[in-house]
Amino acid sequence: MSDATPILARRRGGRSVVAAAREAERTPRLSAIRYGISPVTAVSEAQLDRIHAASMAILRDIGIEFRDETALQQWRAAGARVEGSRVHLTEAMVMDLIAKAPARFTIHGRNPAHVAEIGPDTMTFATMQGAPCVRDLDGIRRASTLEDLRNFNRLTQSLPGFHIGGGFTCEPTDIAVPWRHLEMVRSALLDTDLPFFGLATGQQRSEDCIAMARLVHGAFMDDHAVMAAHISGNSPLVWDATMLEGLRVYAEAGQVVLLSPFVLGAANTPADVAATVAQLNAEALACLAYAQLVRAGTRMIYGQYSVSVSMKSGAPMSGMPEVTLMNVIVGQLARRYGLPWRTTAAQASSKLFDAQSGYESATAMMSGATAGANLMLHAGGWDEAGLVCCMGKFVADAEQNLLIARYAQGVDFDHFDEALEAVSRIGPGGHYLGDAFTLKHFREAFIAPELLDYLSHEQWKAKGEKPMDQRCREKAAEILAEYEPPQIDPALKASLDSYVARRQSEISPNIA
Amino acid sequence: MSDATPILARRRGGRSVVAAAREAERTPRLSAIRYGISPVTAVSEAQLDRIHAASMAILRDIGIEFRDETALQQWRAAGARVEGSRVHLTEAMVMDLIAKAPARFTIHGRNPAHVAEIGPDTMTFATMQGAPCVRDLDGIRRASTLEDLRNFNRLTQSLPGFHIGGGFTCEPTDIAVPWRHLEMVRSALLDTDLPFFGLATGQQRSEDCIAMARLVHGAFMDDHAVMAAHISGNSPLVWDATMLEGLRVYAEAGQVVLLSPFVLGAANTPADVAATVAQLNAEALACLAYAQLVRAGTRMIYGQYSVSVSMKSGAPMSGMPEVTLMNVIVGQLARRYGLPWRTTAAQASSKLFDAQSGYESATAMMSGATAGANLMLHAGGWDEAGLVCCMGKFVADAEQNLLIARYAQGVDFDHFDEALEAVSRIGPGGHYLGDAFTLKHFREAFIAPELLDYLSHEQWKAKGEKPMDQRCREKAAEILAEYEPPQIDPALKASLDSYVARRQSEISPNIA
Repeated sequence: MSDATPILARRRGGRSVVAAAREAERTPRLSAIRYGISPVTAVSEAQLDRIHAASMAILRDIGIEFRDETALQQWRAAGARVEGSRVHLTEAMVMDLIAKAPARFTIHGRNPAHVAEIGPDTMTFATMQGAPCVRDLDGIRRASTLEDLRNFNRLTQSLPGFHIGGGFTCEPTDIAVPWRHLEMVRSALLDTDLPFFGLATGQQRSEDCIAMARLVHGAFMDDHAVMAAHISGNSPLVWDATMLEGLRVYAEAGQVVLLSPFVLGAANTPADVAATVAQLNAEALACLAYAQLVRAGTRMIYGQYSVSVSMKSGAPMSGMPEVTLMNVIVGQLARRYGLPWRTTAAQASSKLFDAQSGYESATAMMSGATAGANLMLHAGGWDEAGLVCCMGKFVADAEQNLLIARYAQGVDFDHFDEALEAVSRIGPGGHYLGDAFTLKHFREAFIAPELLDYLSHEQWKAKGEKPMDQRCREKAAEILAEYEPPQIDPALKASLDSYVARRQSEISPNIA
Repeated sequence: MSDATPILARRRGGRSVVAAAREAERTPRLSAIRYGISPVTAVSEAQLDRIHAASMAILRDIGIEFRDETALQQWRAAGARVEGSRVHLTEAMVMDLIAKAPARFTIHGRNPAHVAEIGPDTMTFATMQGAPCVRDLDGIRRASTLEDLRNFNRLTQSLPGFHIGGGFTCEPTDIAVPWRHLEMVRSALLDTDLPFFGLATGQQRSEDCIAMARLVHGAFMDDHAVMAAHISGNSPLVWDATMLEGLRVYAEAGQVVLLSPFVLGAANTPADVAATVAQLNAEALACLAYAQLVRAGTRMIYGQYSVSVSMKSGAPMSGMPEVTLMNVIVGQLARRYGLPWRTTAAQASSKLFDAQSGYESATAMMSGATAGANLMLHAGGWDEAGLVCCMGKFVADAEQNLLIARYAQGVDFDHFDEALEAVSRIGPGGHYLGDAFTLKHFREAFIAPELLDYLSHEQWKAKGEKPMDQRCREKAAEILAEYEPPQIDPALKASLDSYVARRQSEISPNIA
């Protein structure tokens, strides 16, 4: 942890007046977003039945591999037919287990004001996760470091467009792999006061993440979720031990699990949209059911990462229409099962933060919102098919989140009659700019973004002819310069630091 | 018309073998697209009733101005209450007139293979219209010329992503204003063989446009539409003489009219989404009804151009969530009225073809598609709030149209069972790349765009590190270099040329 962090130097409540004034001017952090639009549907109820039935047939007849002895024992004990590592599940068993999951729950930040409300009718935003590279404030692409990760967390804390911190937004590649999770959680807990994602790659790391959160949250975690773990599947039809260990640690600690099959359409699923969904649905449901077997009532999110694959290069293709359609069907299925679900909100494949990046991200964002996604994951920074977290794009996506949240909330009729009086008052050929209704309501009626530029060509030219990429990198730099870490009891910080120090002395930095 | 055009020099059927081979490789032009997804809704049926009722109250109580003597006489003759230029309309009168419109119709290109199927369940694409500036092949922003307009028409003809040519995609500012429509229609008819938009600014110009189309299409136009006219309203609640003259010429000639209120939210409508829609709906319905009064059965499209306005700069803001919501409600209304409707598909405000341009365009594109828009207008090139048609963006948007069309068509189950057999065959942990089903179906199952880049960072670097902007400008240049004009009987071309020459001798190039 860099000693530049002024947490210990500041007294509680010692924020400067300037900072407080700046805070007051800022767009407030997104609160709970409830969908006010009804989602797109892409298949009829009968077709949805067919997909569901196909998923059930896959689980029953083909089965699914849990490559983990503990899980196999648990499945056997629950009465499933287990052959080798292949688990065959009946519809009744799967559906009974799924039914034990809560349809809605809250993930709490250490700041009580910062919560993520997850439910089948809500929308929440989390930053991207897992990038090995950063496109930095100078637009340079390079391996990411702990300082980059901390900067992403500082941006997450400062920007109003996120409910949940990514946790492992980028890899701190300057830190030994076995120690990274310690730094990630320390940064998530100190540089932000939001709910966050912990690491779930294996038993020991997961336990460290939970233990560190407990240092800060204490017994509150016994009956509240404060963090989530992202458990990725290994399509087709495999769940691996490393992730299942993580799942158990988080589920047993009462924390949230996000269970995501990993679809590379036509590479690890059939070259068919509906059949791909049938397969991923089988994968998701098997692991969702398993999470309930581990601990009934586990808070969980139906996940899925879906892209199609270029047959030219083998590369994942973001924002493609088939993936947009998969999102729609997954949304229909998740609502049928009464489970919240996630999409990949700002998917892009571009090597620059350019027009391609914008097209892809906005398509994915609208795809998620119009399919009714509940967790808009990777909704900040994702580029180059997830290999890069782009600092400029991070702040741009955060602003897009505010726009898409406004859209998702739909239309209110609170001032409809009053507005119609304005129509009478103004009449044909008039204008509304100076009208009392306009002056009273324009701020709330029409959102005004800051990073999208609406100046005239002449004004824009006079301001330096900056492309969005540059404007966003400058904005990111400005936010980082102004950043002040959220307050924390110095004793808690000290206990986190000593936990990390102790574990670093216990864990070899070399990968076995 | 530039003498570089090789139409006369070529014999009929004289296309080179190379060109024919190239043609065969090309992505085929979009055919009729029928929605296979159900649209988003943003208001309940009861709320839709409220908006409709408010529109009816506006037309009845406030009235709407038709600033045109002929229109006022026609309204009086039809029994409307007319006071000055203010026309008061009853719900019965409006609805009876609207009911005379066909719900679906075809616009025919002079190539019989090129048609636009317009209906309440179809999606069609037309390029942008009306830009005074171009961002050219070198990325330079400048006043557009006739050669630019012709190049946009050549691109429209060559790209598979458009059903209808914009007609006046950009202004030929090097041509005298009173002569421009002649050049526009000549180019539309010679450089493309698609359906197209004619000019509708006034009686004389509209008549010229129709007359030129008749030279090519002849009596076919008596009972078929081959072109459309874009009639813009003057919000709030005004329709001007110039556009109404145009409307009458096109309606009487049996051609399509697109009637578009022009919403600058909070400037010429109230600062309220639902009330803005109530106003624009009143405006649209009044003129839609008028088109039926002019000629019962007129083929027409419910139009609307909607943006919100920045209170900082007064500039229109593209892709904002409130406009996305307006789209959704207009879609709900148009379906209730049984009329096809249009959206602004590739709205962007950026001064460059950069990330902002991509975000805005894709948002607007998804907005239209998920709201069920039937005419995706301005779906090629639109940037800088319509002041610029960008040549690079033009080809990028054309590709986006292919993607969004694929999405809109939804999911088919034709190969579902066969694909599920592949799931059985591959089983857990396998891969699908070499499977027979994949090899047979991947081409049709997953679309693979050309201008979006999915190369690895290393491959992309080796290919010159080109941003999308550059790739698209290069693609545009390549298409223009390969362009061959569609065939036309030299006698028809000669008659068009002599019509233009005659009218140029009759019409003063100076604006009165």
